[in-house]
Amino acid sequence: MSDRSRSNWSPTVAEVAAEAGVGKATAARTLGNYGSVSPSSRARVLAAAEKLRYRPNGLARSMTTGITQTIGVILADISNPFFAGVMRGIADTCEAIDYTAIALSTDERLPAERSAMDVLIDKQVDGIIIASAAVRADDVSHIQDALDRGIPVVLLDRTIRGLSLDSVIIDNRESARRAVEHFIANGHRRIAFTWGPRSATRPDSIKDLLDMNELSLWSDAERFRGYIEALEQAGIEPVTELVTHGPRSVAAQDVGEMLRLVDPPTAVLATETEAMVGTLRALRLNKLSYPRDVSLIGFDDSPWADVMDPPLSMIAQPMAQLGRDATERVLRRIEGFAGVPVVDTIPTQFIERGSVSDVTQRTPRPR
Amino acid sequence: MSDRSRSNWSPTVAEVAAEAGVGKATAARTLGNYGSVSPSSRARVLAAAEKLRYRPNGLARSMTTGITQTIGVILADISNPFFAGVMRGIADTCEAIDYTAIALSTDERLPAERSAMDVLIDKQVDGIIIASAAVRADDVSHIQDALDRGIPVVLLDRTIRGLSLDSVIIDNRESARRAVEHFIANGHRRIAFTWGPRSATRPDSIKDLLDMNELSLWSDAERFRGYIEALEQAGIEPVTELVTHGPRSVAAQDVGEMLRLVDPPTAVLATETEAMVGTLRALRLNKLSYPRDVSLIGFDDSPWADVMDPPLSMIAQPMAQLGRDATERVLRRIEGFAGVPVVDTIPTQFIERGSVSDVTQRTPRPR
Repeated sequence: MSDRSRSNWSPTVAEVAAEAGVGKATAARTLGNYGSVSPSSRARVLAAAEKLRYRPNGLARSMTTGITQTIGVILADISNPFFAGVMRGIADTCEAIDYTAIALSTDERLPAERSAMDVLIDKQVDGIIIASAAVRADDVSHIQDALDRGIPVVLLDRTIRGLSLDSVIIDNRESARRAVEHFIANGHRRIAFTWGPRSATRPDSIKDLLDMNELSLWSDAERFRGYIEALEQAGIEPVTELVTHGPRSVAAQDVGEMLRLVDPPTAVLATETEAMVGTLRALRLNKLSYPRDVSLIGFDDSPWADVMDPPLSMIAQPMAQLGRDATERVLRRIEGFAGVPVVDTIPTQFIERGSVSDVTQRTPRPR
Repeated sequence: MSDRSRSNWSPTVAEVAAEAGVGKATAARTLGNYGSVSPSSRARVLAAAEKLRYRPNGLARSMTTGITQTIGVILADISNPFFAGVMRGIADTCEAIDYTAIALSTDERLPAERSAMDVLIDKQVDGIIIASAAVRADDVSHIQDALDRGIPVVLLDRTIRGLSLDSVIIDNRESARRAVEHFIANGHRRIAFTWGPRSATRPDSIKDLLDMNELSLWSDAERFRGYIEALEQAGIEPVTELVTHGPRSVAAQDVGEMLRLVDPPTAVLATETEAMVGTLRALRLNKLSYPRDVSLIGFDDSPWADVMDPPLSMIAQPMAQLGRDATERVLRRIEGFAGVPVVDTIPTQFIERGSVSDVTQRTPRPR
């Protein structure tokens, strides 16, 4: 190991100074780009640095400038197309100003998130953007840790109760409400919600579901609140049998069970890409088709949604914009902006295509 | 900036030593976990470190152990589901052994890739996994740079001519050949390829296309070779009009033009998710359907492929396995393995569903 760890090092400032035939302080001033150095010394130091392949390490560079030009991004799941799209917006914004974004994925687990935060602090990033799996203020000591070290943190996609930080989120509650209202305007009253708040056992009442919802991620919880509000506003009583409660791995089965109820849902609101895929799979397994048997609206307008036959009506989340705005927020903080934290709520777009049918016009499907 | 850069630092070893009432060498030995320290001194140092919130920085830790427990991953495009799936495999493998993977996305551009490499060297990762946009050995000075510093590099998804490094790739040529053979076995002879080698102008001959193909990314080039080989083996002459040559943004239009040829393709091999989505969009715009008018096979078995109606026949790439194997390769190198580099070629799986029809059984479509 020792050879390898040695070869990982660039020459020291002293070695560059010796090669250039100047004093170490002169070399340090030149390489660190501070203080005053004569043009000829500067040229000799730079030539020596080039020859010896000197590379200022992150530590030395940030001791000089306080800036490493890197932003750390902690994502709940890099393989979720939503976060992949957000990351694209972050990377593009960073690149335009010669920053680099480095991403870590936590699979929605807090221990992994804490390790990720440790790594980013160790790697001395200038700022951090995080889609946290934390739901309570007492889960966020790792975020506080970064803040205490002067590293600005911006919350992405999810706010956390009791933590006052710049946040860039989408309007989840309003988006879900609008989708449910669209179903209701088309005559639907049996409207299912997938994926709902998780619980080991079937919840007894909507109150139980709402209690469980308080433990959900903020974005998920807001979508569920929007669903409940839209139903109640239309005088439709929410029922537990139309809300999935199992983990995601069995949510498609949960939807399948709903579809076999005596009084099945005529519409399903799917809260993310995987929920929509699971719902489509459940339809297929039960030999049902949309929008004839069940109307569908999903979150996340994936490219495949409009090549489905018929194309899916979707709530498009402005993923790249979310990434851009979060990056701009964290950059302002890095530059020293000290104003009170703000929450940017970005609206979604409802894209109406062909997956919602008007049930006032049709006879019930035979069972 | 100065306050912020100060607060970004943890106390020095000397400050911890002073707080603990021990010598600096004792504190360094305790915090660096080397040499011999009495149990009582160790306890005092650890208590002081905790109180002062001492955090070994990446540099200090790697000076001690040569290891930072981080692996850098340079991906061509983090928003491509293929790379997102690979990243998942890398992150999971790292986490199991208490390593952290940090990902950077380059959008397939070499300058961004070079910056990414610089950042990873600065951040002192222990090893690097890279899906490089480089196609020639003279494009890889940045990879050489990492190797010269003793940082192992493993190539992911693409080999680079003239660069002898551990590589973990999929069997692109064989996968494409098998798909084309499947079309041929179903009577197809007009088989299109999207996305083909790129060129500003329409290529005059298959030879031109093959020349352009030498400048393509290795994985893309191999798929095209497999396509050509399968055609030639069946005695079918490849023709330029059935291979897209435009950039990806217009490739769906290119497919649309093919579909309006006097003698249109009866089958399309789509080399990645976006190529399949573009082909499906072109079918829809031209009011054609699959597999009635055109048969389809695609690379990358996305979750939505089997909820399409009819479901799509796909070449499933073992994304997570690719990530796992690349991680294991780089870890072996980090541990000091010095054997000759190997190329791991991982087979794909052809998943036959409902998007290929037997044209020997049917009458040509009316035009």
